[in-house]
Amino acid sequence: MKLGAIAKALDGELLGSETFEVARLASLASATENDLSFIVSTRHADALERSRVGAMILGRDLAHLFAGHRIVVADPYLAYARISAAFEELLHEAPSVHPSACVHASAELAEGVFVGANAVIESGARIGPDTRVMGGCFIGKQATVGSDCLLHPNVVVYHDVHIGDRVVVQASAVLGSDGFGFAPDGGRWTRIHQLGRLVVGNDVEIGAGTCVDRGALDDTEIHDGVIIDNLVHIAHNVSIGAGTAIAGCVGIAGSTTIGERCTIAGAVSINGHIDLADGTRVNGGSVITKSTQPGQGYASGTPMQEVGAWRRTAARHARLDELHKRVVSLEKRIAS
Amino acid sequence: MKLGAIAKALDGELLGSETFEVARLASLASATENDLSFIVSTRHADALERSRVGAMILGRDLAHLFAGHRIVVADPYLAYARISAAFEELLHEAPSVHPSACVHASAELAEGVFVGANAVIESGARIGPDTRVMGGCFIGKQATVGSDCLLHPNVVVYHDVHIGDRVVVQASAVLGSDGFGFAPDGGRWTRIHQLGRLVVGNDVEIGAGTCVDRGALDDTEIHDGVIIDNLVHIAHNVSIGAGTAIAGCVGIAGSTTIGERCTIAGAVSINGHIDLADGTRVNGGSVITKSTQPGQGYASGTPMQEVGAWRRTAARHARLDELHKRVVSLEKRIAS
Amino acid sequence: MKLGAIAKALDGELLGSETFEVARLASLASATENDLSFIVSTRHADALERSRVGAMILGRDLAHLFAGHRIVVADPYLAYARISAAFEELLHEAPSVHPSACVHASAELAEGVFVGANAVIESGARIGPDTRVMGGCFIGKQATVGSDCLLHPNVVVYHDVHIGDRVVVQASAVLGSDGFGFAPDGGRWTRIHQLGRLVVGNDVEIGAGTCVDRGALDDTEIHDGVIIDNLVHIAHNVSIGAGTAIAGCVGIAGSTTIGERCTIAGAVSINGHIDLADGTRVNGGSVITKSTQPGQGYASGTPMQEVGAWRRTAARHARLDELHKRVVSLEKRIAS
Repeated sequence: MKLGAIAKALDGELLGSETFEVARLASLASATENDLSFIVSTRHADALERSRVGAMILGRDLAHLFAGHRIVVADPYLAYARISAAFEELLHEAPSVHPSACVHASAELAEGVFVGANAVIESGARIGPDTRVMGGCFIGKQATVGSDCLLHPNVVVYHDVHIGDRVVVQASAVLGSDGFGFAPDGGRWTRIHQLGRLVVGNDVEIGAGTCVDRGALDDTEIHDGVIIDNLVHIAHNVSIGAGTAIAGCVGIAGSTTIGERCTIAGAVSINGHIDLADGTRVNGGSVITKSTQPGQGYASGTPMQEVGAWRRTAARHARLDELHKRVVSLEKRIAS
Repeated sequence: MKLGAIAKALDGELLGSETFEVARLASLASATENDLSFIVSTRHADALERSRVGAMILGRDLAHLFAGHRIVVADPYLAYARISAAFEELLHEAPSVHPSACVHASAELAEGVFVGANAVIESGARIGPDTRVMGGCFIGKQATVGSDCLLHPNVVVYHDVHIGDRVVVQASAVLGSDGFGFAPDGGRWTRIHQLGRLVVGNDVEIGAGTCVDRGALDDTEIHDGVIIDNLVHIAHNVSIGAGTAIAGCVGIAGSTTIGERCTIAGAVSINGHIDLADGTRVNGGSVITKSTQPGQGYASGTPMQEVGAWRRTAARHARLDELHKRVVSLEKRIAS
Repeated sequence: MKLGAIAKALDGELLGSETFEVARLASLASATENDLSFIVSTRHADALERSRVGAMILGRDLAHLFAGHRIVVADPYLAYARISAAFEELLHEAPSVHPSACVHASAELAEGVFVGANAVIESGARIGPDTRVMGGCFIGKQATVGSDCLLHPNVVVYHDVHIGDRVVVQASAVLGSDGFGFAPDGGRWTRIHQLGRLVVGNDVEIGAGTCVDRGALDDTEIHDGVIIDNLVHIAHNVSIGAGTAIAGCVGIAGSTTIGERCTIAGAVSINGHIDLADGTRVNGGSVITKSTQPGQGYASGTPMQEVGAWRRTAARHARLDELHKRVVSLEKRIAS
């Protein structure tokens, strides 16, 4: 790929050779003289100094840090993201249905669809234009997948799940499993069959191994532009607002509503039947038990300590109520 | 489905038309005049008032809240659960083995079995009557699955795993993987081959992405009526007593015994080699490090706070031992 | 299997009959007079006394506890681990490629390879000698798997992932999924295509449902002898040093480096962009937010309590800053 074409694609200013041939998009540490890299702050100026990199993407304020071929852009991190797609070659697939795939006669595949080896597409399912369904995926009855989606291998989409356009689902994710709904019946649990759907908007990203339940009666909803990392559990009837980001190992219990543009850090667990307001931010490892206010940050948990100090702290913590009472007693004695 | 048939199935008292045709089982908010819904407490009286719902299931005490077609039952939530199965249509499968499925010649399929596309059933495995093995599932050698089970797509059942009757396993769950057993060997780890089995009772439910290890020598055991949510990790030689409920993202370390009718909320982690007594209840996000008493509730962790307040609390917490000493010092000075 | 052969394989001293036929390797509790068991400390002397076991592996110091056939070794737990492989029969597979497997013409399978039913091996992939790829696995383009590996059913190995020798991967694990990398773009997220690789060393063990992301530009690295349990999330550009052990439900955020011979207990979550030094130990359920010192132990979190006591403690905890101020106030009043 020529540097001129990249500059054009990024709408950047090229200082250097249009015909410079970029071998790889690389980190500063691993880049060679044939590679393109980027820098977003002066924090990496030293790494740039040491790098053998041949061409750079950088902002106007940092353009003086590099004398070689460079593309000057307003937002170098975003420019890096945009051009990264051009360097991903191994996921390209010519439109085709692998002979080993089992596509039901009543399923509808639009133009440009790729269906990989041993994938299964059930009756009445509909796959939109240019979507790739990789090997081993299962698409249930009457499910729909929009255009230009990428379902990585072994993804399961249950029946009557509906997915928008440009959605990427990493391997072994499960979309539309039955929610955890049971009615107590004299010491036994009677299953509540989950009749709602899962509806996923456009431009959504879902991580590997993540499981999203369908609704009990109404739908589980993941709105446009939501990004979800690996091994996230989203229970039935959860609604996640547009643009919200959810990091790995998060669990969200049933019927909770998460607003737009929230950021939920890793390993957070969120109670059922609460509302996280738009723009809520949650620190990693927190347990969220109550509804939140817009744009506010929340956390729970205690700081890490060396294990000896932690044991002493933990022992004191368990007697915190007693300590409080001793302070109250001191206050009384001093006041009297 | 006619309302009369539903009333009969629920052993409920019908007030209204037997021939009322129910289109959907629906929530009060989404129900139309052709739909059936339910109410369990006066808390939802307003929602019922606003709803366009055509027919209701409710208890005798709330029967006056609705003038339309209604079925009066002792436990409306349980009645809803029971009738929900009748509205699930897309999981019905005629008994058959898809031509793409690989069923070993020595595997035994009972009458009424469904095996979906690209499923694999290995040598010596036995599948009981009316069980559905959906597409992409793998059933290992000499594994047995009872009658009337439903294994959703891409479930893996390892060799020599034994599953009872009426068990439902959600997609991509793994049953019988090797436990995490290694012997230290001069700075390296030597694998302990896991020779025990996984034995799952009747009427068990296992969530999507959940992984249950087989035993090291003796068996891992999941007893009758246990319900387990998504992305739960159950290590080798764990035993889970009848009727216990385990919510999403829970992790249970090896050789721990969990009693009957326990309720373990989401994101709990439980140490190995301990005993949770019958009826133990654990709050969400707790870390359980010791054995418990029957019927008691347990928790760990700290309340969520706005992030500024949380930072102050966390800083104080890290110095809790020092605060304690200052209180002791004050007590001494006052006493003297 | 004869006891003499076992003693020879373990380089142990046989006290008893060489021709004793061992039926099973069993726990003391379940062993019969035809079985072999082991004991590692006097803690299990009572269990041995009660057991019907026919033959034992034990250390010299405990050899007097059992009068039957026995093998005396330096490390009975390690001896148990080593001999356990001989009792695992159902995972043996004759070298072959199941007719339903889809192996691309350009993929290379070395001698002794087993490829199970409905597995998929894509173009340019290379599988080393004696490796078993069980049913339903997916091996992406140009991925390499070394010799003598075992990939359990439905494992996904993405394109350009590289796995060493003697690696065992449990079912439904995902190796090389795209990392969670997005650039903010005026309220939307632009995907950063993940161009790095995942490189896994020799003698690595990866648990069921575990997901390991490929790198963004540089590689994600799992070094020799690392053992990883079930449902672990390892983000892009993480590096895990040789011999480190990671228990179930752990999450490791992006670009974090974990040293050699660390032990990370279950349900730990580790921030991104930090360094855990060699030999770091982390207690279960901790949140690790900062880099660590070599060979030290760390923890966070608070002890479990009965739920009533926990509620009081939690209420006090939320007001810890206020309690601190009251103590300061007392100190001032006493000092004046």
